[in-house]
Amino acid sequence: MSVTAAQGFVAAGVASGIKAAGVADLALVATADHRPVPVVATFTTNKAPAAPVQASRAHLITTGGRAAAVVLNSGNANAATGAPGRADAERTCALVAAELGCAPEEVLVCSTGLIGIPLPMEPLVSGIPALVAALAPDGATAAAQAILTTDTGVKETLVAGPGFTVGGMAKGAAMLGPAMVGPPAATMLAVLTTDAAAETVQLQAALDAGVAASFDAISTDGACSTNDTVLLFASGAAGPVDGVALAAAVALACTELAEQMVADAEGATKVVQVRVTGAASADDARRAARRVAESQLCKCSWYGEDPYWGRIVSELGASGAAFDPDLVAVAYGDIVVCAGGVAVAHDAEALAAVMAGTRIAVTADLGLGHATDQVLTCDLTPGYIDENMRTS
Amino acid sequence: MSVTAAQGFVAAGVASGIKAAGVADLALVATADHRPVPVVATFTTNKAPAAPVQASRAHLITTGGRAAAVVLNSGNANAATGAPGRADAERTCALVAAELGCAPEEVLVCSTGLIGIPLPMEPLVSGIPALVAALAPDGATAAAQAILTTDTGVKETLVAGPGFTVGGMAKGAAMLGPAMVGPPAATMLAVLTTDAAAETVQLQAALDAGVAASFDAISTDGACSTNDTVLLFASGAAGPVDGVALAAAVALACTELAEQMVADAEGATKVVQVRVTGAASADDARRAARRVAESQLCKCSWYGEDPYWGRIVSELGASGAAFDPDLVAVAYGDIVVCAGGVAVAHDAEALAAVMAGTRIAVTADLGLGHATDQVLTCDLTPGYIDENMRTS
Repeated sequence: MSVTAAQGFVAAGVASGIKAAGVADLALVATADHRPVPVVATFTTNKAPAAPVQASRAHLITTGGRAAAVVLNSGNANAATGAPGRADAERTCALVAAELGCAPEEVLVCSTGLIGIPLPMEPLVSGIPALVAALAPDGATAAAQAILTTDTGVKETLVAGPGFTVGGMAKGAAMLGPAMVGPPAATMLAVLTTDAAAETVQLQAALDAGVAASFDAISTDGACSTNDTVLLFASGAAGPVDGVALAAAVALACTELAEQMVADAEGATKVVQVRVTGAASADDARRAARRVAESQLCKCSWYGEDPYWGRIVSELGASGAAFDPDLVAVAYGDIVVCAGGVAVAHDAEALAAVMAGTRIAVTADLGLGHATDQVLTCDLTPGYIDENMRTS
Repeated sequence: MSVTAAQGFVAAGVASGIKAAGVADLALVATADHRPVPVVATFTTNKAPAAPVQASRAHLITTGGRAAAVVLNSGNANAATGAPGRADAERTCALVAAELGCAPEEVLVCSTGLIGIPLPMEPLVSGIPALVAALAPDGATAAAQAILTTDTGVKETLVAGPGFTVGGMAKGAAMLGPAMVGPPAATMLAVLTTDAAAETVQLQAALDAGVAASFDAISTDGACSTNDTVLLFASGAAGPVDGVALAAAVALACTELAEQMVADAEGATKVVQVRVTGAASADDARRAARRVAESQLCKCSWYGEDPYWGRIVSELGASGAAFDPDLVAVAYGDIVVCAGGVAVAHDAEALAAVMAGTRIAVTADLGLGHATDQVLTCDLTPGYIDENMRTS
């Protein structure tokens, strides 16, 4: 159910022919009555935003933040495609709008796949009527399937709030280091839906906070995609709700999707939670956590289940954050391996058990202040190289 | 000859027992008469500088920039070792000074190896007398051998200037993204010697310029080590020289050593020169070039000889540099694959030949201004992961 779990939404996914014949590559999430509802968004901060990002952003401005649907394709990012690419994104929206009976600006668009290759429009022209015809309350998983690229499985969530529901779907895999709200990106796409009735400003605040704590706090490879997009549709069918409860539900839905992305990151064998405490400022905490999470050397160690903490201290010292080498402490799980800047005795057997887990918590205490932050990442493996050494 | 090619220097390398028995791990470069001469240095900007970095920096301040020798060990970084580590670095210098007959502050020290493990002093105590006894004009290669860690071969250079000589040795391999003069590090160590007679200020200017254009313009994995050190000793034996010629010779020696480091980087199969042109500012050019050079996704593509340029454009857009997606052009070698922000027709066979080379030049023209910069890097391979997944 996921993205159609909230009242008032339908979805569909089909194989249009952008990818190899028979592989799902085109998805649609729409309001059940095909009428526009409030929608808020966060987009990539990459200065080379893909055509669909440009089109969706423009549509939301034109409509004052309302849309009836989002169409999403995998297999082609429609990025670095110039003016023809922007025209293709607009045409895609117009094709969907014509079928739904709404205005073209009331349709948003997302794409994911290879950059720099013109979007093949023939599959969209022929596929969109069938896609719209397939819209149904039980079309959520078909839609979630159609947006995947190198993901190995669908990413869906469903959060029940008091009197309302938040549902969602996403895709991730590589180019994951999102930077949408705050400064740091993936091709990651996520569509959230709720039946809560809320003002745009309240929805945007909930989404910004949710994204900052989830998608912007993951980094599998530090890359910031041209296509990252998170959308939140609110049908209002459940009526007004408590704002705090709504924000909490949106944040939880974002977090669940973000964790699924990291766990399914290309080649990953372990999810690693890098937590920095005791930083002098929130900015320092984020900078230090991200530096460790994106370190090739640290990521190799985690793959090898090697508790060598020297690289962590080195990355902290190079992060730009305020740092005193005599105050730092490092722990894997609950096992402190470094304190006061030097090695400390610990239970090597217990440590080996921590390192062998599929989820490792790394905590670095800078000992300088009270700021804390965390980034979710993964190990760097031969599987990642295999996946990315050739795009075709 | 390398580090002893200039008049007035002797060197030695021995196996002291820090590493496995019989493996060279201790090196010494000294003036032939064991008297101090002008020395300038650049050190890592990492905020967790290793004990030897702290000791060497302090010694140069105390002596006003003069030293008679530098002792270097591999097999242990003496980093994250606290006050005992600092005492060990000082004791190492004192042991060498006692043998040479100079003051302890006239001896500098460098270490490279694992972080967080106390430096074993026994091998140093027993090895230093033999090391000093082995000092000879033909000891350069033995010294260059003794400082290696995962390097597969010695790194040496010799540049003949008008009436003077600059020689040098270095080690690199991993943790290579030096940030000594400008902002960005490796464990990389380099010792340069010249027989030119020059003032400290002139020597420092020559070294800063040389390091900025070489060691600070390489990044194999973006890591900034706790131990990076570059030293330049000037014996004065050749008398006064032309300042411009000296700077040029020092820069060339640094560049030759830096190129040897990248070519011998852990697991590397290709050297990749990332050049950014047309940037709005020098800072933008450096930032954009470094972002592409350090991109895991781009590095995987180069390993796979895949000319997929979408990742390059995406990294440029995410680099923080001023960027207009409609103006960017990308070329591999002389073959332009993207212009005006979109794909352009090119000779696919010629492109495949470029990608198959052991040295690939990637040029990205931002089309915005006149600033340019370049970073030398390498591909990301399973060999890198193999090398770094386990430290023991």
